[in-house]
Amino acid sequence: MMREQLVLSLPMRTFTDDQLTRALHGPGPSPVAPTVLQALGRPVLGHLDPTFLQIMDDLSQGLRQLFRTANRMTFPVSGTGSAGMEAAVVNLIEPGDTIVIGVNGVFGGRMAEEARRAGAKVEIVEAEWGGALPLGELAARASAIDAKVVGLVHAETSTGVEQPLAELRSLLGDTPLLLVDSVTGLGGSQLEVDAWGIDVCYSGSQKCLSVPPGLAPITFSDRAVAAVQARETPVQSWYLDTTLLSAYWDDSAGSRAYHHTAPISMIYALHEGVRLILDEGLEAGWGRHQNVGTYLQAGLLERGFDMVAPVDVRLSQLTATLLPSDIDDATARNRLLFEHGIEIGGGLGALAGKAWRIGMMGYGATIDAADRVLGAIDAIR
Amino acid sequence: MMREQLVLSLPMRTFTDDQLTRALHGPGPSPVAPTVLQALGRPVLGHLDPTFLQIMDDLSQGLRQLFRTANRMTFPVSGTGSAGMEAAVVNLIEPGDTIVIGVNGVFGGRMAEEARRAGAKVEIVEAEWGGALPLGELAARASAIDAKVVGLVHAETSTGVEQPLAELRSLLGDTPLLLVDSVTGLGGSQLEVDAWGIDVCYSGSQKCLSVPPGLAPITFSDRAVAAVQARETPVQSWYLDTTLLSAYWDDSAGSRAYHHTAPISMIYALHEGVRLILDEGLEAGWGRHQNVGTYLQAGLLERGFDMVAPVDVRLSQLTATLLPSDIDDATARNRLLFEHGIEIGGGLGALAGKAWRIGMMGYGATIDAADRVLGAIDAIR
Repeated sequence: MMREQLVLSLPMRTFTDDQLTRALHGPGPSPVAPTVLQALGRPVLGHLDPTFLQIMDDLSQGLRQLFRTANRMTFPVSGTGSAGMEAAVVNLIEPGDTIVIGVNGVFGGRMAEEARRAGAKVEIVEAEWGGALPLGELAARASAIDAKVVGLVHAETSTGVEQPLAELRSLLGDTPLLLVDSVTGLGGSQLEVDAWGIDVCYSGSQKCLSVPPGLAPITFSDRAVAAVQARETPVQSWYLDTTLLSAYWDDSAGSRAYHHTAPISMIYALHEGVRLILDEGLEAGWGRHQNVGTYLQAGLLERGFDMVAPVDVRLSQLTATLLPSDIDDATARNRLLFEHGIEIGGGLGALAGKAWRIGMMGYGATIDAADRVLGAIDAIR
Repeated sequence: MMREQLVLSLPMRTFTDDQLTRALHGPGPSPVAPTVLQALGRPVLGHLDPTFLQIMDDLSQGLRQLFRTANRMTFPVSGTGSAGMEAAVVNLIEPGDTIVIGVNGVFGGRMAEEARRAGAKVEIVEAEWGGALPLGELAARASAIDAKVVGLVHAETSTGVEQPLAELRSLLGDTPLLLVDSVTGLGGSQLEVDAWGIDVCYSGSQKCLSVPPGLAPITFSDRAVAAVQARETPVQSWYLDTTLLSAYWDDSAGSRAYHHTAPISMIYALHEGVRLILDEGLEAGWGRHQNVGTYLQAGLLERGFDMVAPVDVRLSQLTATLLPSDIDDATARNRLLFEHGIEIGGGLGALAGKAWRIGMMGYGATIDAADRVLGAIDAIR
């Protein structure tokens, strides 16, 4: 495009609902619940309005129930899941700090990149893509270098692996802070922030919470908060500095300090998404994701698809599946999208062109939806 | 609150539309246009859906028209206006770089704090709150220290000052990069990114664009892009790294690289907000803000309010006004909110308790709205 063409005074296009209607079964965004869409369109309040402050408190309380934590500092970061990752890393890490990170997919690798940019000495523990991380090796490396933080991913969206976490704290002992990415886990898989000794955990609104992308729920344990307060250098990000953010989100001081203007409409949407999960029951929701994922995976196996992850560490809400030889990735995904209105995800990194990622998440995790995806796959073969 | 109380399994509250309905005439968020609220509730697409990529291109094209620029790298940052500021600063600045920043209110001070956290050597040029910055002094300081960047605020939301900018580039000469915060300016005041030689400019969705808070439109000139590409150190923020972001937003390479999951619904909303501005005509919109601001300010002066900023540098869309002695700040603002459903803003910093900030922005910039605010002020005195 020539530079001149960039300044043409074109009117903006309009788009019909028909053009926007897809069944979202990729790795996210996932289908948004109708009442969440309604919440997005509600009248906008000011970020210091007394009613909005009630909504914030109510949302924090709901997020604590999802994370299974009593952590006071529990709120949504004003950005997507990746902003949640960055908030976690840049608050915990100051230059020269040591962190051990488990990498068995794209998102562990992203966490390592975030930590390097924050000035950490990063020690990587790798596992093959599609496998789980060896907890004993993580603990041994953490002990060997006296790591300040150990970080890993609960639900690897690139490989469909659910990382066992329940035993990690006892292997680590008390010392290192435990940082967990549960962008795709929260609401879909069992997650026990307090019982599993997790210090910082973040998620994203657009996976199992049935909310559009744009917010990253996060929680910090009291000792993680203390570690941030004990820093010798300022957090490199002003926008994500949790000490400043908690002065707005936490009213225990009896007042709210303006930091940035909260994304009001998205917070309404997240409030409604969390309400729906608690209304169904958190454990009932885990069970629904498991049932639907198992059903989808059985249907895929019957059709000659293999799974990237072995059954004992396989996610239910996000299935990474290897393509049978008769299916061409790009052609087939285009047909699913344009002929059947279904979005599924391609493989990332080493799995590009060879695997699909099929999400059955949140409001989209139903047997009907799995039937529709399987039927469409049959139709295009 | 005791820790145990934090984990009570409370159901989430619900809120009626009545509780959420306010006339937003503070410093933002400002009233959201009805079709923008409708856009928020539209079906959600995937962030790599071909139709969504069209919406992105169309939005970038619209934002170029608002910024009056041919800059290819023009897109919304996935965060609020403060994230736009941080994106601008952390991309342009690497440790040891020099920046001259004009400070005549809260937001210039925030830019200086951002620059310090990015490792800059920061040189401040101050002006009194309520006055404009001395352009000659900015240029002289930039020349004296051979500054890489000169940064200042176009529309100071804390003081209601509109900073003259048209002559700055000729005073600066070609060398320094010019960084302008137009969070409250874009869409409300004349802004000419290309004609005024501005290299990086950012705004916020929730001021004169009639969109809820959550996105920060930003534009980078080609030489600003070149400066980012010439860095010796990585941008400290992965989330805000414009080189990674442009691989998603700019299709000139013929493909789109996934970076983070775009906030789909907010992008629909911004697309509609920009469409409305272009539909009215950008200059017609500037004129409307000026007419309504002048009308409001005349009404306030008649009622014994003084203005923080002198008339020649006074913003129209955001009026900072000193309270007459018979008005108690907190009491009066509470009565406006609870008895009249009108939100206005208190003073920030040195002006706390002494000034109000009254916004007539975007969809809320009408003579009717000004009459309503003035009438309510009369009613509570």
